[in-house]
Amino acid sequence: MSAPKKILNDPYEVAADMLDGLIEAYDGEVVKAGTASLVKTNIPEGKVALLVGGGSGHEPIYHGLVGTNLADGAACGDIFAAPPPNVILECAQAVHRDNGVLFVYGNYAGDVLNFDLAVELCKAEGMNVQSVLVRDDISSAPPEKKEHRRGVAGLVMIVKIAGAASQTAESLDELVRITTKASDNTRSLGVAMKPGSIPATGVPTFELPDDEIEFGMGAHGEQGAERMKMTTADKLVPYMMEKLFADDLELNSGDEIVLLVNSLGATSMTELLVVNKEIKKILREKGVVVHDTIVGHKMTCQEMAGFFISITKLDNELKKYWDMPCESIAYSKM
Amino acid sequence: MSAPKKILNDPYEVAADMLDGLIEAYDGEVVKAGTASLVKTNIPEGKVALLVGGGSGHEPIYHGLVGTNLADGAACGDIFAAPPPNVILECAQAVHRDNGVLFVYGNYAGDVLNFDLAVELCKAEGMNVQSVLVRDDISSAPPEKKEHRRGVAGLVMIVKIAGAASQTAESLDELVRITTKASDNTRSLGVAMKPGSIPATGVPTFELPDDEIEFGMGAHGEQGAERMKMTTADKLVPYMMEKLFADDLELNSGDEIVLLVNSLGATSMTELLVVNKEIKKILREKGVVVHDTIVGHKMTCQEMAGFFISITKLDNELKKYWDMPCESIAYSKM
Repeated sequence: MSAPKKILNDPYEVAADMLDGLIEAYDGEVVKAGTASLVKTNIPEGKVALLVGGGSGHEPIYHGLVGTNLADGAACGDIFAAPPPNVILECAQAVHRDNGVLFVYGNYAGDVLNFDLAVELCKAEGMNVQSVLVRDDISSAPPEKKEHRRGVAGLVMIVKIAGAASQTAESLDELVRITTKASDNTRSLGVAMKPGSIPATGVPTFELPDDEIEFGMGAHGEQGAERMKMTTADKLVPYMMEKLFADDLELNSGDEIVLLVNSLGATSMTELLVVNKEIKKILREKGVVVHDTIVGHKMTCQEMAGFFISITKLDNELKKYWDMPCESIAYSKM
Repeated sequence: MSAPKKILNDPYEVAADMLDGLIEAYDGEVVKAGTASLVKTNIPEGKVALLVGGGSGHEPIYHGLVGTNLADGAACGDIFAAPPPNVILECAQAVHRDNGVLFVYGNYAGDVLNFDLAVELCKAEGMNVQSVLVRDDISSAPPEKKEHRRGVAGLVMIVKIAGAASQTAESLDELVRITTKASDNTRSLGVAMKPGSIPATGVPTFELPDDEIEFGMGAHGEQGAERMKMTTADKLVPYMMEKLFADDLELNSGDEIVLLVNSLGATSMTELLVVNKEIKKILREKGVVVHDTIVGHKMTCQEMAGFFISITKLDNELKKYWDMPCESIAYSKM
């Protein structure tokens, strides 16, 4: 396999170039803060601030979720690398409005290490800071070891809800409570057909035989639960939905969810929509009501082929926040 | 090159499966009409109706642009094929509210043929119908032969504006006037690094040596203006912008535009954002003001790698319609 043909500048400066391009895409709504963060220009005094962060290369997720009724700022790491603690600190300082800062990020070892260090740095500066980790990937650990689960595409829904809630939350504790509930109610499961690659080197992030797919892999292609032969949507989707239903989030007839069918890059909207047809058939049989469906490229891994199915179960409180409009590079709704 | 691994069902039923999945993605906002159309459920009596259409396989464009303050219905063709006249007629009948129907579609021979036939069928049924063709691809013909230009990603902006205008337009003529202005003010230019393929056969839509890119190709990979050696964003983008500026749409300091940086499929958000950085540098030097930037997968061609740069120049009237909120699978704004 030859390295993919990508239109970039210096391949070792991709994360920095991309951050500049992302800030430009916001048409003045955000500015650069410190060395590798973007923050909104209009954060009101006294607001509980919401900060997201993670490695670059998965756009539009993480840094593209800054926006109206979404995150106030994002701390950006290098390609597939956690943001360094000082970057997170700079971002926290820039979004802080004297009423606490919530960090929301995916559960990866590097991110946990750096965000935990950043919490200490922020506390040393007198800021009130807490973290809610996203651990939605059900294939990465069984329910009884949920604290080991990776964070994947379900982060979109969790940040959507947290961003809406942060507009009116009176305290950091209140925002932590709501965001934790959103995180507890979110589950994802993925499958990969083809690796993405690291922009600087062109090296694929994993290897996969031509006739096999990786079931339950992570957002970079971390090892999944099993390899299976290439198959069709009407066989694969029921198997995925069965795994989602078998997890510890109860889904009964009449329950309402938000559904995200997410491409990891090269997987086409065509495929996502065929997959959505199969998902809906199964949800309808079970009586689960889809309040809102999102289909598209939200958490990507370069030109990786594959997709995540993510669900967030709504209660009245989460639904109220879900229904608020929002706007950003990654996700907008009226 | 082996055929891409796609998660589908019967590869010869892809367009029909996808249409079902697309309708499902709207969560009740649209229903299927006739054999291959989707239409909104809440079109008010007396509204001038807006109908888009085109081949399937380019999602989310065309059929994903039905929605709030966007199109009222979409007539869907098979993969990369124009919708048949009877499908367009069925869609027109379903959206018609006794105040005319506007067809907006890209200028391809098959589409022109079928939409023209559909116009006759609609007129025979007593409907008032007109068409506005999208001809934004500047590489497909010189300005003096503009009527031969292909329609590509700029259709997103044109339908956005037409959809907003259709909410208050008192007559079909009024909507035609505004939509024609949006179309006249839109220009696009593309480049491709890798072909997509036809889902049923896996056959690539074009061929390209590993070290070359196709400059000015169409949305399916139709032959472009030239082949060039693989290059970097800071060399390619200035060349593309020069071509856009050299076209017959005047862009002077202080002019306002909407900018779309569109992935054709496998091209990553990483690349689009680096490209956006380079575009903005050039626009700033020229004093052109970007009122709104869209970066993402809007008009795709399966797993094709490549992108379009599309611009729509705004005047006060177009800007008013641009600023209205909208919601759909393809594009939403607050």
